[in-house]
Amino acid sequence: MTPLALVRAADAPAIDIIDQTRLPHALVHVRLASVAAVADAIRRMLLRGAPLIGAAAAYGVAIGLGRDPGDAALAAVVRELGATRPTAVNLHWALERLRARVARLAPGLRAEAAWAEADAIAAEDVAQNRAIGEHGLALIEAIAARTGRAVRVMTHCNAGALATIQWGTATAPIFLAAERGVDVHVWVSETRPRLQGANLTAWEMAARGIPHRLVPDGASAHLMQRGLVDIVFVGADRVTRAGDVCNKIGTYCKALAAREHGVPFYAAVPGPTIDWKLTDGVAEIPIEERAADEVLWVSGRTDAGGDARVRIAPEATAAVNYAFDVTPARFVTGILTERGRAAASEAGLRALFPEAA
Amino acid sequence: MTPLALVRAADAPAIDIIDQTRLPHALVHVRLASVAAVADAIRRMLLRGAPLIGAAAAYGVAIGLGRDPGDAALAAVVRELGATRPTAVNLHWALERLRARVARLAPGLRAEAAWAEADAIAAEDVAQNRAIGEHGLALIEAIAARTGRAVRVMTHCNAGALATIQWGTATAPIFLAAERGVDVHVWVSETRPRLQGANLTAWEMAARGIPHRLVPDGASAHLMQRGLVDIVFVGADRVTRAGDVCNKIGTYCKALAAREHGVPFYAAVPGPTIDWKLTDGVAEIPIEERAADEVLWVSGRTDAGGDARVRIAPEATAAVNYAFDVTPARFVTGILTERGRAAASEAGLRALFPEAA
Repeated sequence: MTPLALVRAADAPAIDIIDQTRLPHALVHVRLASVAAVADAIRRMLLRGAPLIGAAAAYGVAIGLGRDPGDAALAAVVRELGATRPTAVNLHWALERLRARVARLAPGLRAEAAWAEADAIAAEDVAQNRAIGEHGLALIEAIAARTGRAVRVMTHCNAGALATIQWGTATAPIFLAAERGVDVHVWVSETRPRLQGANLTAWEMAARGIPHRLVPDGASAHLMQRGLVDIVFVGADRVTRAGDVCNKIGTYCKALAAREHGVPFYAAVPGPTIDWKLTDGVAEIPIEERAADEVLWVSGRTDAGGDARVRIAPEATAAVNYAFDVTPARFVTGILTERGRAAASEAGLRALFPEAA
Repeated sequence: MTPLALVRAADAPAIDIIDQTRLPHALVHVRLASVAAVADAIRRMLLRGAPLIGAAAAYGVAIGLGRDPGDAALAAVVRELGATRPTAVNLHWALERLRARVARLAPGLRAEAAWAEADAIAAEDVAQNRAIGEHGLALIEAIAARTGRAVRVMTHCNAGALATIQWGTATAPIFLAAERGVDVHVWVSETRPRLQGANLTAWEMAARGIPHRLVPDGASAHLMQRGLVDIVFVGADRVTRAGDVCNKIGTYCKALAAREHGVPFYAAVPGPTIDWKLTDGVAEIPIEERAADEVLWVSGRTDAGGDARVRIAPEATAAVNYAFDVTPARFVTGILTERGRAAASEAGLRALFPEAA
C-alpha cells in the first residue's frame, strides 16, 4: 500500500505523518504525539495542503484534550494550532468544528469526541476526493474508449494525496484509473519555483508505479500543440462562483494552451473550495507574493547524496514570486466536484450546490 | 564598458572570450590562441549562440593560418573547427566564407586576409544587431511616450550580447534604450531547463545596471494578465518564410499569453535566420530532444560558494526535454530585422528581403 500523508496511530494517541520536506529523496515518517509537535509540523510545512492541515489540526485538538480536557486547555490548543498558519481557511474551519463539537461536553467526554470528530473530518475528505476521482475517471475512460491507447493526463503543482488524507483532488481520477487498469501516462509539470510537481507529484506517481514524465512548465503548450496531452487536471485554492480558478502560478499558462489546442481543462475541487462570495477572480482575489529566494535558489539532492540549495541568478538580480494565478472561467472546461462535473459558471456550479448562499 | 563575449586581442594573434559556463557567478576571461583552444571552447560551450560561434570559428581560421598558411593546414583547420558542432549552420557558413576568401590567395597573404574577414564578420554582426536594436527601440520609445513611465519588456532565454559579438538580438532594443536614457524594466524569464534567462540574460542586465527582475517561466501569463508587460522580445533559431518562430522551449506559452492580453510580441532576428525554404514551422521543423538530466538536475552556486548540481525529482522519475518550440505566425506581432519591422507573413518578410530565393 502506498504510504499516506497522515494516519491515526493504532497504538497511541498520536498521528503518523510523512515529512514532506524530505520528499522526494527520502521517505521519513514522523509521529506527532503532542499539540506542540503538530503545531511545529504545520508551521515547518512537514505537512502542507489545505485539507491535510485541517485534519492534522483536528487530530491535534484530540491529542491535546487527551492530556487536559479543561476549558482553558481547549482554548489554548485551538489558539496554538490556529497561530501556525493564520490565513489557512481550512485549518480554522477544522479547529472551529472541533471546538463547537466538544465545548458543551463534560470534560471527561471531550477527548473521545474529538478523536471521533477528527476521524470524521478525515473520512469526509477521503469520500469527497474519491467521488471527485470517480467523476474524473469517467472523463479518462471516455478518452481511453475513443482512442484505444493510454490517456495522457497533464497536472500542475501537487493537488495530490500528499495534500489530503487520501486520493488528492487532481490526482484522484489518475489513481482510480490506475487501480481499475485504465492506462494513463502523466505529464508532471515541475511547477517552479517550489517544484511541487517535481518533488511531490512525481513522487506520488513513482510510489504507485504510474507511468509519468517530468517536464518544465514552459513545455506545456508545445506538448499540447503536438497532440501529446488528452486532458488537464489541476487543483485549486479557490474557485469563484463564476468558475474562475485560483491555483498555483503557471496554471493559467496551461489553460491558455489547452483552449488553443482543444484540450479539456478541469479544476478538481471539493465543494468547500468554491467561494460563493467571489465572482471575478482576477479582480477580487489578492495574489500572495512569496519570498524572492524561492525563485533565486533551487533545492535538491547533490550527486554526493546530501541536501543542498543552489543559486541560479547573479547576486545583483532580484526576483518576483507570485504564488498563484487566476484562470478565468472561459478557459475552464469544467469544475470536478464530489457531486459531479459542473460547467465553470454560476449556473453550472449552483446546479450542483443549490443550497449555497 | 560592459565585458563582451568575444574581443580580438590587441597584443597577440588570439581572441579573448568570456567563459559562459562560469556565468553568472564568476566572470572569467579566457584567451584562445590556437585552433585547438577555439575548437575546445566551442565544443565545451564556453561560447554559445550561433553568431558568436560563427565569429569565433572565423577567428580560429585566422589563428591557424598564422601558424601554417598552407592548403593542407587550411583544410585541417576548417575540418577541426567544423567538427565541433556539426549541425550549427552559422558555424559552417563562417568557415566556408573564410575558406572561400583565402583559398585563392598566395599562402603568405592568407593570415592577414583571414583576420580581416573575421573582423568583417564580427563587424557585420554588430551592425546588424544594432540596426535590429534601433527598430526595436522605436517600439519602446512609442510605449514610453504613450505611458510616460518605464517600459516593461519581457524576454525569454538569452538572445543577448553573450550570443553575439555585441548588442544581441532580442536585447539590442533594451540596451539601446538604456544607453539613450529611455527607462526600461526587464522581466527575465528564467528559461527552464537550462536557465539561460537566470544565468545569462540576468547577468547581462546586471552588468549594465538595467533594472530587471527574474520570474519563473510559468508566471508570464499572470504578469500579462495584470498589465505588467508592455512588450515581449524574443530571439529565434529559425523563422519560416511564413513568419513561424522556432525558439527556446517556453516561447510559445508567452506568445499565447501575449495575444490573449494584447501585448505586442516580437521575434528579433538577423535576416539570415529566416529560412526561405520552410513555410509551416510546426509541421516542418524537427524539435531537438536533449538529455533528460537537464530537466532532472539544476546547477548553480551553493551557499558555501561552490558550484553544484541538485536533483529535483525522485530517482524513479524520467523527464522529457524538448529544446525548442514553434510559435505560429498568427501569434507573432512582427519580426524585427536589421532592415526594419516586418509583419510575420511571407508578404511582410519578402517586402524587406525581396532578393530572397
